[in-house]
Amino acid sequence: MQEPKRGASATLHASIFHNSPEDILLDLKDHGWEAGDAPRRFNESAAELATLFAEEREGWKGYIEWERYPEKKRKAAEILSRYNFKGNDEFQLVPLPSTNPILEGKRWKQYHKALAGTIQDIPAISWKYVTKEKSDDMIHVLQFPYNGEPPRDRLVQTEFTPNEDHFVRNHGGIPEIEPEKYFVEVDGLVKEPQSLSFADIQDETKFPHKSLVVTLQCSGTRRIEQIHEYPGDGDELINAPWGEGAIGNARYTGVSLKKIIKHCGGLVDGADNIEFYGCDTYFKKGQVYNYVVSVPWRKVKANEVLLAWDMNGKPLPKIHGYPLRVVVCGYIGARSCKWLYRIKGIRGPSMAPVQMKEYLYYTPQVGKQNAMYSNGFSIQDMPVSSAIMSPIDKKVIVHSGSISLRGWAYSGGGHWPIRVEVSGDGGSIWYEVPPANLSTKYYHGWRLWSIDLPVDAEGWLELCVRCWDNALNTQPTFVRSAWNWDLHVTSSCHRIKVYSVNKSRKRTSERLAKLEEQGLGIEPLTMPLEVDLESEEDYIQQVISTGGRDPVE
Amino acid sequence: MQEPKRGASATLHASIFHNSPEDILLDLKDHGWEAGDAPRRFNESAAELATLFAEEREGWKGYIEWERYPEKKRKAAEILSRYNFKGNDEFQLVPLPSTNPILEGKRWKQYHKALAGTIQDIPAISWKYVTKEKSDDMIHVLQFPYNGEPPRDRLVQTEFTPNEDHFVRNHGGIPEIEPEKYFVEVDGLVKEPQSLSFADIQDETKFPHKSLVVTLQCSGTRRIEQIHEYPGDGDELINAPWGEGAIGNARYTGVSLKKIIKHCGGLVDGADNIEFYGCDTYFKKGQVYNYVVSVPWRKVKANEVLLAWDMNGKPLPKIHGYPLRVVVCGYIGARSCKWLYRIKGIRGPSMAPVQMKEYLYYTPQVGKQNAMYSNGFSIQDMPVSSAIMSPIDKKVIVHSGSISLRGWAYSGGGHWPIRVEVSGDGGSIWYEVPPANLSTKYYHGWRLWSIDLPVDAEGWLELCVRCWDNALNTQPTFVRSAWNWDLHVTSSCHRIKVYSVNKSRKRTSERLAKLEEQGLGIEPLTMPLEVDLESEEDYIQQVISTGGRDPVE
Repeated sequence: MQEPKRGASATLHASIFHNSPEDILLDLKDHGWEAGDAPRRFNESAAELATLFAEEREGWKGYIEWERYPEKKRKAAEILSRYNFKGNDEFQLVPLPSTNPILEGKRWKQYHKALAGTIQDIPAISWKYVTKEKSDDMIHVLQFPYNGEPPRDRLVQTEFTPNEDHFVRNHGGIPEIEPEKYFVEVDGLVKEPQSLSFADIQDETKFPHKSLVVTLQCSGTRRIEQIHEYPGDGDELINAPWGEGAIGNARYTGVSLKKIIKHCGGLVDGADNIEFYGCDTYFKKGQVYNYVVSVPWRKVKANEVLLAWDMNGKPLPKIHGYPLRVVVCGYIGARSCKWLYRIKGIRGPSMAPVQMKEYLYYTPQVGKQNAMYSNGFSIQDMPVSSAIMSPIDKKVIVHSGSISLRGWAYSGGGHWPIRVEVSGDGGSIWYEVPPANLSTKYYHGWRLWSIDLPVDAEGWLELCVRCWDNALNTQPTFVRSAWNWDLHVTSSCHRIKVYSVNKSRKRTSERLAKLEEQGLGIEPLTMPLEVDLESEEDYIQQVISTGGRDPVE
Repeated sequence: MQEPKRGASATLHASIFHNSPEDILLDLKDHGWEAGDAPRRFNESAAELATLFAEEREGWKGYIEWERYPEKKRKAAEILSRYNFKGNDEFQLVPLPSTNPILEGKRWKQYHKALAGTIQDIPAISWKYVTKEKSDDMIHVLQFPYNGEPPRDRLVQTEFTPNEDHFVRNHGGIPEIEPEKYFVEVDGLVKEPQSLSFADIQDETKFPHKSLVVTLQCSGTRRIEQIHEYPGDGDELINAPWGEGAIGNARYTGVSLKKIIKHCGGLVDGADNIEFYGCDTYFKKGQVYNYVVSVPWRKVKANEVLLAWDMNGKPLPKIHGYPLRVVVCGYIGARSCKWLYRIKGIRGPSMAPVQMKEYLYYTPQVGKQNAMYSNGFSIQDMPVSSAIMSPIDKKVIVHSGSISLRGWAYSGGGHWPIRVEVSGDGGSIWYEVPPANLSTKYYHGWRLWSIDLPVDAEGWLELCVRCWDNALNTQPTFVRSAWNWDLHVTSSCHRIKVYSVNKSRKRTSERLAKLEEQGLGIEPLTMPLEVDLESEEDYIQQVISTGGRDPVE
């Protein structure tokens, strides 16, 4: 009998394995299964599974409640342990696929398929909302759970990111919740636990509406730079290969969570954190959960945590948490729980896996050989960061002495970008972005910037950017300066390589003219020129004028 | 009518184009031709082409003489101009193919096919000698003309590189020359021009045999590092993506060229360079040549230029120039002309394309937009260089406080490596390779080295090496320090990334033991661990011991 690979849980549940490969209820072949990995026979029928993992509430499609039912969680883990799930395809030590979606998320789909019942349709339903709610040209970093970012250049064309262009970093499937059936429970260490309907929450007589400009950023933004430098933990869901677009700026409208907690009588003495429960199903090392995270009460008290139903003057898209999500100002996006169904007062930070076991920031000497949950620290406030979004990496730029750069700059924790600097030489000489070229400052929003950078040099140049925030924090210099095993928070100076062609130089302008005359271009750059670079006569004259090739004596 | 892409020569020969696609004598489809690129009708029959581009001498298969027949060269160029040859496939801005051969050399094969006659068989004949004379596990960097290097680790196992492992960098096909039919002409600015048979040259009563240890190195060695940093001129023949193995050390036996020239009465007054003609056919921007290069007489006079028929005590392999090749000590390998058929006294360096238009070393600001033949300098003496050959890049190394490194070090121009240093931190702290761990010093040979480098740190480390030669030259620090458009002479400190797992550390040793217990390994490194990293209890205890996650007040 082939043992599944899952270590501890496999041993725990070995007693329920059966051996008849004929009697396979789940067909996982279309999810990359191979013959040898066929799931073992088990006793539940499809109907039983559908009942076991049924949706919780009418009008809440795709929401399976796990956290209230330890027995159901145990059963799901038991079922998962019967499978020899394939690991992720390697995507760090080999070139990233040039497909879109870049990564598919096979394993996450397999988990859903394995639990059957209602949950198996979630990947398909979720993808439907990607195609419906997001721009056609999104870069689908991971198909399921959906992780996507817009094209670099477009992201910095508007101070407020259009909803359809805003990055999405989901940890599970998208539930479909009817707003009239929606309510959120507030319980745990609050003095007067309550259920609040969508109408209750939007009722201005109870809770004043509050509107805030908030930049949300995934701690994976620019992860691809860390991956290119050194591969780290290769879990495609946790560590999707994001570019510079896993950040977006929007005006959110809703109510301050502080008012809701006050409405529920405030916290019981000793409670100091608020836990959020999202409808999405989350998997971690063979266990099943709802998406659960927490923020400190101190953050809530400062009115920096919104429950929002409106994004840029429009109802929240389903993919962004409709009907109600949390928006935590200045924090890693992961705390801004979507499809919120429960708010719980607790003591200390949440012990749920996303809070305790994910989004940890390790030292460079910590990795697979010694990483613990306790030797990384938990990422909350996001540090100062920035990126050049135009031009893009590896571009050939024909110019007359200056190159136009545009990008974003952001600092979390209520700080704001106060100066942005760019360098045309990899970080030796810096030019300040003129203050007039920075967009409006907000406590919790990014600032877009643009500059014409003087460039004399030709050939490959390393352009880079750094931001200073109002607390004088600036960015680490190199990717290596802040590389970490889980590949989070790539906040080092953002660097791009561009090929500079300065046509204000005589020889270059002559070459460009000659190429044009012959219907040739400078691009593609690497394509060899089929024309002779110089006549024999000119060559000889040049060589003679410099004293010949070799010394005479 | 579709115009071919070839610029000047296309315009020149436009008058001979014909339009009937039916009457196509050459079938180039199997060389990547597409329908729209079908060669145009022309007047020569296959038989005429075979006569036109016939082999020159009986017993010299695959040698077409071009340099003595300007009219034949013109005709060949005319024929080539009728084709819309495909450019190379892009191989720098995209990941290198993971095939072996890595690149195929389609265009070079097409040239041969287009000239038909005897020349079209040369690629197949040449490949036969690769399979016959070289090790099975060679890395075929370019299939035709053949460019290949041995696996990294094996190259530094022996001070003398076995012939079958020695790198090969050919510029054309391999001729098959019967030694009894072989002779070399010595002419040009020599006082008594002569033809010397193979027997004449090997006759010790005329010329004393001379044996020298010589390291030959392609100026493309380690080019892949420059390509990864910044793409340059993308001609796959000129700029094949070599690793660290385009270098080899051998003992060559033959005669000093100085003796041959003296035998021919010495040079005519004013002659100061010696030109070599190889049997291989070479193509450059639509023109056809024999492979021709030159060296200064000063170099010959110093007895640093051999005509060799023996390599490591064995007859020269065909792929290395059988029956007779030039071996130039301390110079770029390109000057060591193979299949030598002519030696010519000249004034000034050769104006042949390999000497004048190739192997030029540009400044970092020179590129496609402004490169001339005269603004790069011609590469002769090779600079000091070195490489780490074991371990290889990206390796995970489990150790107890030190890592074993091995590699080569070399300096051209008669210099020798006098000190080798390695660093475990990217080049801040350097450790000297113990002098006893350096192989024998030679004026023209490499030195192999090995060291146990003390390593405490864990995680990704950048290991690097640098060599000092007896003239106190050392290597540029970074690839960028010496990057150049034609991607030659990557002599910067060689750097590799390894993942260090120091099992003398307690936590690491515990993790390794735990993994072993569960039948899991630390590799593949990027594969996520399916086991929990820490129990909840241990986590809580740890977090409490550091004062909790957040401050209390």
